[in-house]
Amino acid sequence: MVNNKAVIFNKWVTDYPVIGEHFEYVANREVTHELKEGEILTRNLYVSMDPYLRAKMRGLDETDLFGRFTFGQPLDNHAIGEVIASKNPNIPVGEIVYSFLGWEEYSVVPAGQYVEIIKNARESKLPLSARIGVLGMPGFTAYGGLLRYGKPKAGETIYISAASGAVGQLVGQMAKVLGLRVVGSAGSDEKIAYLLNELKFDAAFNYKNGDILTSLKAAAPEGIHIYFDNVGGRHLEAALEWILPRGRVVMCGQIGDINTQNPPGVRNLFVCVPKEISILAFLVLNFEDEYKAEFEKDVTEWLLSGKIVYKEDVTEGLENAPSAFLGMLQGKNFGKATVKIADL
Amino acid sequence: MVNNKAVIFNKWVTDYPVIGEHFEYVANREVTHELKEGEILTRNLYVSMDPYLRAKMRGLDETDLFGRFTFGQPLDNHAIGEVIASKNPNIPVGEIVYSFLGWEEYSVVPAGQYVEIIKNARESKLPLSARIGVLGMPGFTAYGGLLRYGKPKAGETIYISAASGAVGQLVGQMAKVLGLRVVGSAGSDEKIAYLLNELKFDAAFNYKNGDILTSLKAAAPEGIHIYFDNVGGRHLEAALEWILPRGRVVMCGQIGDINTQNPPGVRNLFVCVPKEISILAFLVLNFEDEYKAEFEKDVTEWLLSGKIVYKEDVTEGLENAPSAFLGMLQGKNFGKATVKIADL
Repeated sequence: MVNNKAVIFNKWVTDYPVIGEHFEYVANREVTHELKEGEILTRNLYVSMDPYLRAKMRGLDETDLFGRFTFGQPLDNHAIGEVIASKNPNIPVGEIVYSFLGWEEYSVVPAGQYVEIIKNARESKLPLSARIGVLGMPGFTAYGGLLRYGKPKAGETIYISAASGAVGQLVGQMAKVLGLRVVGSAGSDEKIAYLLNELKFDAAFNYKNGDILTSLKAAAPEGIHIYFDNVGGRHLEAALEWILPRGRVVMCGQIGDINTQNPPGVRNLFVCVPKEISILAFLVLNFEDEYKAEFEKDVTEWLLSGKIVYKEDVTEGLENAPSAFLGMLQGKNFGKATVKIADL
Repeated sequence: MVNNKAVIFNKWVTDYPVIGEHFEYVANREVTHELKEGEILTRNLYVSMDPYLRAKMRGLDETDLFGRFTFGQPLDNHAIGEVIASKNPNIPVGEIVYSFLGWEEYSVVPAGQYVEIIKNARESKLPLSARIGVLGMPGFTAYGGLLRYGKPKAGETIYISAASGAVGQLVGQMAKVLGLRVVGSAGSDEKIAYLLNELKFDAAFNYKNGDILTSLKAAAPEGIHIYFDNVGGRHLEAALEWILPRGRVVMCGQIGDINTQNPPGVRNLFVCVPKEISILAFLVLNFEDEYKAEFEKDVTEWLLSGKIVYKEDVTEGLENAPSAFLGMLQGKNFGKATVKIADL
């Protein structure tokens, strides 16, 4: 028996999750880790905090496509770990891996689960956490979402909500590299300054200061060709109002709606017909996707050459993960939210 | 000067248009018809009644993509006429043409406007009105919308709202020809009986009897792959709830929303992300479209062989056009709404 600190799920959530009621950090948790054939044991280093996790807390019926957490078990998500025991000959002890791991110190990874060995992880110029950020799911979501669904053309204007978030900051910078005019919104003046000064967005506004549509019109006076939607609700309404004919809405998240039982509804979908708008929603791109190799090549090059930068909001310590998660749901993170569980 | 009876537009509309206030039939309207080079004069035979015309009554700003009617002038729309005078050598007197004409007895068609000569119009086995129905804009909307945006595959299930309307009845029958399971909804038991007995839909329900989602689940217990949306609002909500992963929403009209100032909003767009739904809206297919030749060939053949039938709701007399239009907005028409202005 070893002690395996973890964040445990306890109860279905209807509004914001409450620490101690719906989920909680447990410092004393005795487990045994006897590996079966094909399994590995990881010492966990980083775990990602993503909005979609909130959906797994809802307890909708079993067909819900986000899936559901299990009472009494750790939450889980995209994570980085070090292999410390292995009954899988393809994944030796000592490797650093990306996989789907618990919010816990150690995880047993079942045989057959997707595990990616991060090559040269100890020597890379890029931080390990990049593998669950800019070079991981959020980065691939940004890249694939923008290219496949947004179909961007140089000279077009893109509007991005939650633009300083894990996905939004990358979409904006990638769109700049591709020659688009980039407009973003976020919820604090500090974030807006970051978008303008560090990420070189062409325009940005704090959506909490005044009417979203008015701000969007001022920031993109000629209209927008693409709306990259990380929020839904009122942001989507404003974007639909201001999007140009044949515009594309890439719907990647609806964080504004996911936390409320009775979201207000989008009242102007009727503008879609005369403007011939496409609304293209996707959950996550499969890592076997055709864009994957291109993504890794492009983004690594852009990162190393400084064409794109990536801001992370790293919370230290598993015991702080519940509050980091709540903070992310409320937009308090500044950059990609990640929890560091242990040093390499 | 000749008398040219017409239906005249008078005032912007906020709710349902009122006859005598917003538009009205005028029996005595003196006009002169002196043709300039390139113009033709038509004696009008049939004019189409379409939901989108309501949008031209709203008086939104000049950038509104539906366009706007002009005070004191006749309404206009897709129509059939006989050429009775011509200063266009390509369009001789005596031809029957499809074009965009006024709700009036005679129209002067400007040089350069799209005019299509209906070949063998007097000998065709199909009624003239088909050119503004099954072989015209509604037919092409159904065919192109289903094929291009719906991407139907044999064995899939499609749900169609306003299924006995101008477009819906054709989408359903075309989908049957293509091997889909077809479910429709409409607003009267008479229409439902027609869908089931005459058009051979696999299932159909009266959306006024009970909750739409409950009815849809009963009619399509395995879920739906395609939703062909002619209505918007609560129908769209129910369809999004019940559509299968990677489902396609073909958005072709939002008649449920177009007539109200404060439509209720679609409250469940957040289901689009986990289910990776595409919502594809289009206004009207250009007659120069790649699908046009295929459309005319397929649909003519299907009509003549009885594979599809087409129900029209023809109102006799221009003086009855205003009430026919209102009836269509309220779903009182049964089949494609058309006004017959004169005999050939």
